[in-house]
Amino acid sequence: MKEYIHGGDIYRHPDVLDFSANINPLGTPSAVVQAAKDSMEWICHYPDACQEKLKQALAAYEQVPVEWLICGNGAAELIFALVQAVKPKRALVMAPTFAEYAQALEAVGCEVDREILKKEDGFTLQRTILEKLQKEDLQMVFLCNPNNPTGILINPKLLREIVTICEEKNIYLVVDECFLDFVSEPEVHTLKGELEGKQYLFLLKAFTKRYAMAGLRLGYGITSSETLMEKMEQQLQPWNVSMPAQEAGVAALKETAYVEKARELIFQEQAFLKDGLKACGYPVLDSQANYVFFEGEPDLYEKLLEEGVMIRDCSNYPGLWKGCYRIAVKLHNENEQLLRKIRKVRR
Amino acid sequence: MKEYIHGGDIYRHPDVLDFSANINPLGTPSAVVQAAKDSMEWICHYPDACQEKLKQALAAYEQVPVEWLICGNGAAELIFALVQAVKPKRALVMAPTFAEYAQALEAVGCEVDREILKKEDGFTLQRTILEKLQKEDLQMVFLCNPNNPTGILINPKLLREIVTICEEKNIYLVVDECFLDFVSEPEVHTLKGELEGKQYLFLLKAFTKRYAMAGLRLGYGITSSETLMEKMEQQLQPWNVSMPAQEAGVAALKETAYVEKARELIFQEQAFLKDGLKACGYPVLDSQANYVFFEGEPDLYEKLLEEGVMIRDCSNYPGLWKGCYRIAVKLHNENEQLLRKIRKVRR
Repeated sequence: MKEYIHGGDIYRHPDVLDFSANINPLGTPSAVVQAAKDSMEWICHYPDACQEKLKQALAAYEQVPVEWLICGNGAAELIFALVQAVKPKRALVMAPTFAEYAQALEAVGCEVDREILKKEDGFTLQRTILEKLQKEDLQMVFLCNPNNPTGILINPKLLREIVTICEEKNIYLVVDECFLDFVSEPEVHTLKGELEGKQYLFLLKAFTKRYAMAGLRLGYGITSSETLMEKMEQQLQPWNVSMPAQEAGVAALKETAYVEKARELIFQEQAFLKDGLKACGYPVLDSQANYVFFEGEPDLYEKLLEEGVMIRDCSNYPGLWKGCYRIAVKLHNENEQLLRKIRKVRR
Repeated sequence: MKEYIHGGDIYRHPDVLDFSANINPLGTPSAVVQAAKDSMEWICHYPDACQEKLKQALAAYEQVPVEWLICGNGAAELIFALVQAVKPKRALVMAPTFAEYAQALEAVGCEVDREILKKEDGFTLQRTILEKLQKEDLQMVFLCNPNNPTGILINPKLLREIVTICEEKNIYLVVDECFLDFVSEPEVHTLKGELEGKQYLFLLKAFTKRYAMAGLRLGYGITSSETLMEKMEQQLQPWNVSMPAQEAGVAALKETAYVEKARELIFQEQAFLKDGLKACGYPVLDSQANYVFFEGEPDLYEKLLEEGVMIRDCSNYPGLWKGCYRIAVKLHNENEQLLRKIRKVRR
């Protein structure tokens, strides 16, 4: 069995208060749960291979042509499909960042170059990446904006320069915007406006985090490149998105008030958690997402787990070390409980 | 959008009586639907990446070590993962057979050699395949037993000879047993007893057909080859099987009486359909599965669709032609309705 290197493993740790997975703290909207439940009456049939209803709803939501959309069994499936479609020999990922980019790249025998994000730069992507893109023989780049696990955004001007260089140099640029819904000004940071006419730009998005439906698996990608789209579709089975995921997705896209409410809550509670962690004397990053990154004692994960609270020990991220932690922003009473437990175990 | 080449497209053909998808005619067991529904209360969490409960139940059901099992988002996902893991340069598939083997092979740039099954041989696999395995430089072979769309079984002695040659010549042999639950003596045909010690044998199975849960997506594979298992796991995201699919799978494996009832019904109704089709003067294959293959008028598909009945037009299978059809074995009144409609449109 491949080693499990992510958060959210409530199966080996039942009954914990889980801060290790970055899910919308409001929980799944009830209309989404209901839509998925209702679809169960039809599961003897195959799901719609054309994903027609879902893609039409998504096209309206994202205001993009339906042909620009590809849906996956979670965004993670699309990461693998992207890499299998492009088959790069050499690719660049940030360090630290979400582990599945490198996992997918290594699965096709690709050499993975890592752009190290430094603590002294606040884990912010630097302009040195431009030089690397110009000089190195890269076929693919993965960026995560805001980055996971740090919650740090890429400077929008730098990001657009990267887009231009990648397009010029025929480097596939994948920008993972899965957590962009939870930053204060998504419209400043999203590259959706850049997609038209770009042959090498791909944006990755997920229902998982936005609507708290990780268990159902639904993610999507947006690109205006017909070539890339065709290559990706060849890598996927026709029925990759299950019937409940398709039905839940259609219902979820109507939940605008829910997302707005979640955003407000996250802004408030993110500040509350940052203040609380700083008051403990921990160095806390200025994370702009539904999670917060900080440094603490090397045994904080274990001590909190003994108290029934699970945080994400980030020491297995390339570029990080023992004592780096990520916590999801949850409901106020849960966040209070976390801070209380931290204060308790430090005594 | 990749062209859809399979049956079961009830989305572009709503309200038809669908004979085009080979699903257990009894429909999804209610306990399976209920288990999936119940899991909806937890979909804010990620599914279990280790699939612990499901794999333990499967290991007990199949009487194999849990390490021999790999689960997929439908068996179709595993076909792609297999091919991406092995990356064969040249592979052999039967013609006609299930289209996704060749689709997956072509997606990795593999040359696909086809072993043509001839009408004059009753679409039965011949011993000539042995010579091909000995002489050609193949790295992978896909067999489907019973074959889809014909329902024809491979001679068990020949099949075991193929296993031996493939093992000797280091050719990965994938045997798709997805429809084997619905033949009269599965134990004579399954290669499960051959798995131990074999480094190149992989068996493919699905919940889809056995428990009529195609919409949920759940398939699995069995191999004793640690090397192949590791390579396949590298090609898959950690959360490839959704939470409802895992929960439904565990519930499904308890449904032994349901499967037995379905088998009896299928044996009876398969005979009823074959007799009815033969009475129409159609050549009917001796299909041994929950579907029947026959030849009819070139426009039978269209004429039946006008009558609200959808059958599988098999003319897009390599090795077949216009006028080849596959029909699922359904409930008695549905099967009667099909035969009535056929008699009507032929008048």
